[in-house]
Amino acid sequence: MSDHPEAPITPVAAYEPPYYVAVFTAVRTQEQSGYSETSARMEGLVRAVPGFLGMDHAETPGGLGITVGYFRDADALTEWRINAEHGAAQKRGRSEWYQSYTLHVAKVERSHGFSRG
Amino acid sequence: MSDHPEAPITPVAAYEPPYYVAVFTAVRTQEQSGYSETSARMEGLVRAVPGFLGMDHAETPGGLGITVGYFRDADALTEWRINAEHGAAQKRGRSEWYQSYTLHVAKVERSHGFSRG
Repeated sequence: MSDHPEAPITPVAAYEPPYYVAVFTAVRTQEQSGYSETSARMEGLVRAVPGFLGMDHAETPGGLGITVGYFRDADALTEWRINAEHGAAQKRGRSEWYQSYTLHVAKVERSHGFSRG
Repeated sequence: MSDHPEAPITPVAAYEPPYYVAVFTAVRTQEQSGYSETSARMEGLVRAVPGFLGMDHAETPGGLGITVGYFRDADALTEWRINAEHGAAQKRGRSEWYQSYTLHVAKVERSHGFSRG
């Protein structure tokens, strides 16, 4: 989920609250045809949304995947939510790629970070 | 992160808002002595906190780990935050186990889920 795979992996840093998180937790099916291409396309689209701050992704092999998107405000999230191409991808996700998922949209009240250097 | 590893993996379901999420994103160091034991102990402790609703965890091998804890209200989160044994584990995490991490605490405004059945 980085444009620079050679760079060290780091979690997205804490922003000054308030900001929004969209927490997407999912288990995928065996049917993953077209998933990677669509996922890369969605990442490109969301990065172009004004107020998009960044995203984190982790996936346990054969298990749960979690994607967290960070947005400056509710308007930025709304723009992403109503994007037509995003809507089409979600529909295909439900019919093919996802066994189950949950989305939690939340307003960040506090945050902090730590880095060894 | 389940008491029943033989059960199918499923993301924690959507609760009725408002509720809280604590999103912990981390990259670990090479020094992981004692990490598994402490992690299991912390999971036991947090599950005993009144108002704790559940947790999701995903970790990309050699990459980012994301843990999301769900809590009924701010009081439940506070109880977990001030737990002394949790505080000691956090301190050890900064000195040994984590290269970097970020914590985002947020109030959920909307949520929904999907399951294939």
